[in-house]
Amino acid sequence: MSKLPVIEIFGPTIQGEGAVIGVKTMFVRTYGCDYRCSWCDSAFTWDGSAKDKMRLLEPEQVVAELLELGGDNFSSVTISGGNPALIGEGVGQLIELLHQREIGVAIETQGSRWQDWFLQVDALTISPKPPSSGMATNWEMLDSILHKLKSSESAAHNLKVVVFDEQDYAYAKAVHQRYPGVELFLQPGNTDVTEEGDISTRLLGRLEWLFQQVIADPEMNQVRVLPQLHALIWHNKRGK
Amino acid sequence: MSKLPVIEIFGPTIQGEGAVIGVKTMFVRTYGCDYRCSWCDSAFTWDGSAKDKMRLLEPEQVVAELLELGGDNFSSVTISGGNPALIGEGVGQLIELLHQREIGVAIETQGSRWQDWFLQVDALTISPKPPSSGMATNWEMLDSILHKLKSSESAAHNLKVVVFDEQDYAYAKAVHQRYPGVELFLQPGNTDVTEEGDISTRLLGRLEWLFQQVIADPEMNQVRVLPQLHALIWHNKRGK
Repeated sequence: MSKLPVIEIFGPTIQGEGAVIGVKTMFVRTYGCDYRCSWCDSAFTWDGSAKDKMRLLEPEQVVAELLELGGDNFSSVTISGGNPALIGEGVGQLIELLHQREIGVAIETQGSRWQDWFLQVDALTISPKPPSSGMATNWEMLDSILHKLKSSESAAHNLKVVVFDEQDYAYAKAVHQRYPGVELFLQPGNTDVTEEGDISTRLLGRLEWLFQQVIADPEMNQVRVLPQLHALIWHNKRGK
Repeated sequence: MSKLPVIEIFGPTIQGEGAVIGVKTMFVRTYGCDYRCSWCDSAFTWDGSAKDKMRLLEPEQVVAELLELGGDNFSSVTISGGNPALIGEGVGQLIELLHQREIGVAIETQGSRWQDWFLQVDALTISPKPPSSGMATNWEMLDSILHKLKSSESAAHNLKVVVFDEQDYAYAKAVHQRYPGVELFLQPGNTDVTEEGDISTRLLGRLEWLFQQVIADPEMNQVRVLPQLHALIWHNKRGK
């Protein structure tokens, strides 16, 4: 078996965003990212600040910890990062072990790298990063990933773009036009991921702004706009 | 053609709740209901207070008004009520006209009555009402509706239960156990549908409560918990 770098395991909680919004799930967060998004809400997975909490675990150990923490109180696991697509076999084996227990798997990754286990994921979110992130999209890689997913019958995949401003919105639109058959979720960005206290009014203001962009735009009739429910309820607290 | 009693047509806006949460849509609200839910947020569709605004429209007239209002800026129409299932042919013909224009149709109804057009709806939400509503569920009717929907390949249907309190939660659980294969959405109730001003803090408090019920309950691993986004953003304002 191949080990995975894991920075946190928590849950059960409710998935707050994207295609499986509202679903009860456990979370496994892997360590390490090939990106450095300016507004990353999980920078501790790559900025070194929590490196001492990273553990190399066998897939079986991850499953054992999930069961210890969640008991029979979940039937879905979300593997997030960092970028889980930096990890090959370890994640593939974890997915297989979870499927053997009839536990569904959701994964989010930015689309900078392919892994064969993409085809085994029950809900795979490809989330390319808009200009505000400071990252550059590798469109050829993204094309190749979406092409492979489209060619497979088993891969239930969707796209998600976080939108902070008008430039990001234009980027989201370019993504939608490039991959018209793939369900696209837009999510308003959280401009301050360290602010303490109740940030729900600020977040709902941005959700309304994004609603209005889409409402006014005949080229975006098919996209879906969703907030981050966990941030509305639990604000910037970690491990929720 | 058969006329429909219509109380309002509005949009485009974003669908705020349920299986198609986040989708841009026009709304057609039909007049009349066989229920009198204590907390109904659209009581003007049945309590007589807006009866003078009700119009009997041909399905073609409804489509014409939708196009006049929404232009090319939508590809989905939500038919809501009242209870649209009180209306037979008129709604069936409206669905057909919309499909001819490649417009998707979402409909919500409480499951007190069957209509053959249920099988043509792209997203059909059956929303039986919990004890807090003051209404009694006709389980035989509900069984028969869910059975017919299950037997049809074309019917994309789901269940939704609004939950105000622990009794309602127990009801939702009974619904889930009775129809285990059908996706079930839970939605926290809005206890005051006339309160003015920003009610988002109150609503998010109820969402967190409902999250905690589901998180703690191993028999509810498969349900989905979602808020009403329109109420979080636009509060109790009508026609949004």
